[in-house]
Amino acid sequence: MTALLIQQFLGELDVYMRHIVDETVPLPSDFSVMLRYPMGWVDENNQPYPQHTGKRIRPVLLLLCAETAGQNWKAAVPAAAAVELLHNFSLIHDDIQDNSPLRHNRPTVWKVWGEPHAINAGDAMFTLAFCAIESLVNHGCPTERVLQVWHIFNRTALELTRGQHMDMRFERQAVVTVDEYLSMISGKSAALIATCAQMGALIGSGSAIMAEQYREFGLNLGLAFQIRDDILGIWGDPKVTGKSISTDILSRKKSLPVLFGLESSEALGRVYGRESFGEADVHEAVAILDEIGAQQFAHETETLYFQRAVAALETAHPSGSGADSLMELVNGLFTRKA
Amino acid sequence: MTALLIQQFLGELDVYMRHIVDETVPLPSDFSVMLRYPMGWVDENNQPYPQHTGKRIRPVLLLLCAETAGQNWKAAVPAAAAVELLHNFSLIHDDIQDNSPLRHNRPTVWKVWGEPHAINAGDAMFTLAFCAIESLVNHGCPTERVLQVWHIFNRTALELTRGQHMDMRFERQAVVTVDEYLSMISGKSAALIATCAQMGALIGSGSAIMAEQYREFGLNLGLAFQIRDDILGIWGDPKVTGKSISTDILSRKKSLPVLFGLESSEALGRVYGRESFGEADVHEAVAILDEIGAQQFAHETETLYFQRAVAALETAHPSGSGADSLMELVNGLFTRKA
Repeated sequence: MTALLIQQFLGELDVYMRHIVDETVPLPSDFSVMLRYPMGWVDENNQPYPQHTGKRIRPVLLLLCAETAGQNWKAAVPAAAAVELLHNFSLIHDDIQDNSPLRHNRPTVWKVWGEPHAINAGDAMFTLAFCAIESLVNHGCPTERVLQVWHIFNRTALELTRGQHMDMRFERQAVVTVDEYLSMISGKSAALIATCAQMGALIGSGSAIMAEQYREFGLNLGLAFQIRDDILGIWGDPKVTGKSISTDILSRKKSLPVLFGLESSEALGRVYGRESFGEADVHEAVAILDEIGAQQFAHETETLYFQRAVAALETAHPSGSGADSLMELVNGLFTRKA
Repeated sequence: MTALLIQQFLGELDVYMRHIVDETVPLPSDFSVMLRYPMGWVDENNQPYPQHTGKRIRPVLLLLCAETAGQNWKAAVPAAAAVELLHNFSLIHDDIQDNSPLRHNRPTVWKVWGEPHAINAGDAMFTLAFCAIESLVNHGCPTERVLQVWHIFNRTALELTRGQHMDMRFERQAVVTVDEYLSMISGKSAALIATCAQMGALIGSGSAIMAEQYREFGLNLGLAFQIRDDILGIWGDPKVTGKSISTDILSRKKSLPVLFGLESSEALGRVYGRESFGEADVHEAVAILDEIGAQQFAHETETLYFQRAVAALETAHPSGSGADSLMELVNGLFTRKA
């Protein structure tokens, strides 16, 4: 039953995203391929791509919240498309900013078409997200509610740029505290997940109060989600994550376990401060993190946010056929290995 | 009288743009400086900047259209702020894409803060443009009309990315026809000016028909405007334009006079095809353009669009105190030397 509902979501979502990307205005094919490729629909020559990319966690969460808050997931499909487009826009620009050559085992947009085109493709994807929000009007969402959703969406998009700014600043900042880090991820990954829950509940139920309860749930879920990412980036099984071992340590990323480590161990600071940094240094850094219990600290922090998310969700009283699926999704995110 | 009205516009516009940039959400000052700097309010150290940058042509045009179509310019101030923010967003990203180090005699955003931060600053400026459109609701614009304006704005933003794509493609395309070029500028500079006229008239009058007439005016004005830019980029007086002589030829830009030249003179193709290209080649290219009457061709094309713009404006019957100012602005754009 649960799997069937999610399959239905993914089917309608895919149709709708293709409609927005391909039909909003006619775009030359050498341009639209730059939008269809990162969505995972085609390869770089605009030929059908057999493998799915991206887990569509955000739009599925949004639709589950619309369904459990008001038994009305269909009205929320355009908003689900919008958050997935917004997410993909941010990945296109992030990959340029981070100089990342690969995503989902394929060359990133800038790697295929160069930076200038990738900037422009991201801008187009961003615009399409707004077009998707606008189209809520044609899906039975009352005008006033569309304006409320748009307001949330605008603030979230701005919040994402603030989070991205802080993330880039941290790379060059000598000392980053755990608190600063949590504020940064509240503005980045967690902000978008909070917005998914809030917008879904608002479209589904029309109740701003219920939407706030769902937002509280989403924000805590998003924080737990990011911390799980941080743990997997160091201790994840390469066979399951598909990434190289301790990839976040190799790039000297200031993730939560590392910041905890830097606060409590001077030795880690010395290793991280080395001019050249290779596999041996990675092993040394991970050994220090293990010794001081950085994984456990991160896992406890994750658990705390996870529990807060569950408590907030209980307050919101999700109901109907989607309620089990929603709990399953939440539990799945908490125990995921990749 | 005319000057007084424009002064009033610029004053209210400035207040409103600062409100949107500084107060939509609190941003850390090392981030907001990247938005305030390109607006010309501060220097790169966030200190007040004594000189104004940017002519604010687009928002002034929008407000004049709101005033002449419905004697209601104040309701349109948020939309005027939005088009100026959108214009500035596109400049921030264009400057990265074109690798341009200078704008208004100051280092560009990417030159000061690096490409990753400039991409992010552009994204934030883009988002703020949507926030400004949204805020029309609080300025007495009826909800339904706000949705119409938003629709136009979304399509225009997407159109701008299409125009930018074509512009970048032309740089590498061996043969570009005059028709292809006109289609490209219809999607870039002219699309935004058309939208200014249309949105202004729509907010001012509430009449979609009148707004269409204004759009027709704006589109032709925008085409004439871009062609004037092309002429000045080759034959402009460096003392007046503030740019080096024939700057567009030195960068081998495929502007209208050049495309006309390449269609009618093989000699120009040979000069443009040279591997290294210096001052002597620029003089040779300009001499060929002069000989074949490229400036005259461009000027005639510009005049044609200008006349169409004036005819479309007459059909729209602009009225009230702004009508003279609007004609003055239009004539000023046609005869401008910089």
